[in-house]
Amino acid sequence: MADQAANTRGTERLEAFSDGVFAIAITLLILDIHVPDFKENETLMHSLSHEWPSIIALLIGFFTILICWINHHYMFTMIRQSNSKLLFINGFKLLIVTITPFATALLSRHMETGWGPSAITTYAFNFALMGIAMTCVWCYAHFMGFTKGTSTEVLTATTRLYIFASLFSITIVIVSYFSIAAWLILFFIMFLIFVFPEKIVAWQLERRP
Amino acid sequence: MADQAANTRGTERLEAFSDGVFAIAITLLILDIHVPDFKENETLMHSLSHEWPSIIALLIGFFTILICWINHHYMFTMIRQSNSKLLFINGFKLLIVTITPFATALLSRHMETGWGPSAITTYAFNFALMGIAMTCVWCYAHFMGFTKGTSTEVLTATTRLYIFASLFSITIVIVSYFSIAAWLILFFIMFLIFVFPEKIVAWQLERRP
Amino acid sequence: MADQAANTRGTERLEAFSDGVFAIAITLLILDIHVPDFKENETLMHSLSHEWPSIIALLIGFFTILICWINHHYMFTMIRQSNSKLLFINGFKLLIVTITPFATALLSRHMETGWGPSAITTYAFNFALMGIAMTCVWCYAHFMGFTKGTSTEVLTATTRLYIFASLFSITIVIVSYFSIAAWLILFFIMFLIFVFPEKIVAWQLERRP
Amino acid sequence: MADQAANTRGTERLEAFSDGVFAIAITLLILDIHVPDFKENETLMHSLSHEWPSIIALLIGFFTILICWINHHYMFTMIRQSNSKLLFINGFKLLIVTITPFATALLSRHMETGWGPSAITTYAFNFALMGIAMTCVWCYAHFMGFTKGTSTEVLTATTRLYIFASLFSITIVIVSYFSIAAWLILFFIMFLIFVFPEKIVAWQLERRP
Repeated sequence: MADQAANTRGTERLEAFSDGVFAIAITLLILDIHVPDFKENETLMHSLSHEWPSIIALLIGFFTILICWINHHYMFTMIRQSNSKLLFINGFKLLIVTITPFATALLSRHMETGWGPSAITTYAFNFALMGIAMTCVWCYAHFMGFTKGTSTEVLTATTRLYIFASLFSITIVIVSYFSIAAWLILFFIMFLIFVFPEKIVAWQLERRP
Repeated sequence: MADQAANTRGTERLEAFSDGVFAIAITLLILDIHVPDFKENETLMHSLSHEWPSIIALLIGFFTILICWINHHYMFTMIRQSNSKLLFINGFKLLIVTITPFATALLSRHMETGWGPSAITTYAFNFALMGIAMTCVWCYAHFMGFTKGTSTEVLTATTRLYIFASLFSITIVIVSYFSIAAWLILFFIMFLIFVFPEKIVAWQLERRP
Repeated sequence: MADQAANTRGTERLEAFSDGVFAIAITLLILDIHVPDFKENETLMHSLSHEWPSIIALLIGFFTILICWINHHYMFTMIRQSNSKLLFINGFKLLIVTITPFATALLSRHMETGWGPSAITTYAFNFALMGIAMTCVWCYAHFMGFTKGTSTEVLTATTRLYIFASLFSITIVIVSYFSIAAWLILFFIMFLIFVFPEKIVAWQLERRP
Repeated sequence: MADQAANTRGTERLEAFSDGVFAIAITLLILDIHVPDFKENETLMHSLSHEWPSIIALLIGFFTILICWINHHYMFTMIRQSNSKLLFINGFKLLIVTITPFATALLSRHMETGWGPSAITTYAFNFALMGIAMTCVWCYAHFMGFTKGTSTEVLTATTRLYIFASLFSITIVIVSYFSIAAWLILFFIMFLIFVFPEKIVAWQLERRP
């Protein structure tokens, strides 16, 4: 009887609520790009070109949230059950997602001021928290056995991938203290790895006989 | 024939619409944290640290809405039917959810001004309305028999839990008049209880033979 | 073959997209209530009480969109198919829904200025367009036979209800020119009728043998 | 085994996330229409009439996103599988959707300033990117065979339609440099064609024996 109350449930609403938060956070990013005022002696294109830090920040923010959503989606093709603890851990992840537009605005506003390096480190820190939250969601669900129906090899490869996500994103924070160029390169590598998580998992499986 | 028109329906769209409102309200909270302007003689971290009332208010608001969503989700794993009255009562609950970003902004802006205690009481009052709305949704659905398929013991334990939610959140309003420390402690206890509603229900069932 | 391309589809995505628009429009209303600045010689409650036009406008806007959603939900328990034309007519309805926060803001800002009566008429006009759009959605779907599986009596009673919705909401616009008190009363009556559409339909069916 | 990890999935979440982004972008448009301040010697209607560039821009932006959604919906009645690459290409499309409220705001603010022609070209450019993204989504899904279960004739006609969408929207950008009147006419023709994609596909099929 206690079982009946504490039993696990499907993940439909967790996914729907998460999709909502992802969709809103990703759309709010545009609110930070301001429509320039008309100036007699300047073209619109020229005026918009002054906004380049905002535009770069928008693209970084957009692809951060998009890739985060792609991985969330990937995980939940394997996670088929949920309980309140998973909702709460996922909620922590969504907190980081809602903070991302703020970290992006910080980057956009201060990329060119004296606070540029701090803004980049703050963004990297937010990104690392996102990676860690992602790892927590996956590891908890995997540990609780909510991923039934997928082969052990795939689960192990996925676990390895998401532990790597945490470690790599923490490394990025540390690197961002020393070199912005190195930060950008590592960031781009991380994007390339996590935009197609299923390929990385498939590649791991092919390497092992 | 009248039956056919007035018959009850599923809860899919009620859940989808509610998820949308929860997701937007929880994401709007970040709009209240302002990007600080660059100051020559201050670091970004130092400047952000002045924003601590906003950050604390964001966290309180975020976890209030998250826990509210977790409980909404929990209820609707048992509620399987709906009618227009339930949609309307649920709508009242959503009204309180949409007001929460305003109550949070009030808390954020006035935590340190002379209106601090009033802002806290207003927040507690909004929180109590949320608890009461939650109780109304559950009790109406339970009373109408929309919770078929769940054992009576679980239903009774859940009803007890949500009546307790109303009473406890009303107590918190009263306490908030007298002591902010006591308010914070009670608030935190309420969070701990309602973050895992299924555990509390299971625990009640285990205690009774 | 032409058939296969032009065939009708389900209404899941139409409902999901509409739910999203309803949820955002209803949550945006709160952005119009401003957090008052601290004043030494005034309490928070007193200061918030100056915001009463905003609060009344928020409640009117909230219940307008909620009732609109309840009726949309009611219709689509019977409408089971869609085509591009229905998506477009429903899109017109959603246009009115997205304009509602603007009409509400107009009401909130000018309820007490010299533009009060015009703001009320504008709101009533927006409300009438909503009623008319609702009627169009229903009548088109009914005419195209997308409502299969529901008895003719229920369909006829529903058609009657939504034609009445258009006529009554147009009447309200005209009345709003002459008397604000009469406007408020008619508005409230319309709310009472359309909050429980299924009851009105059931009541019509009971009256006829 | 590698197959199991890299296999394709359904499109439910892709559609839900896209619906969220479409719904938010379409609702944010209204935030750009400002409530006018009270002026003693002017009526509300007269004052709102000064806002006509904002209102026209709102309508253009609204119907752009709506028609984009209608076509997304149409495509995904045929696309039944997805992989990470499709999620990414669809993500690029959503990026353009989130930029649309900015392009609309640009149009609204500068329709009457000296930047009018540039604002129109920028809007047309954004619109062309949307058309191209749409074509990419369709062509990739079609090429990968995610559209199983639909007859080859329908698929070919749809492919033709969406390649035409790209070409026509690029033409509109070029025309917008030379004549605003011609731009408006082509824009309106494009709306008429893409508001009912299924009709155009059916019409193509009927013409060929």
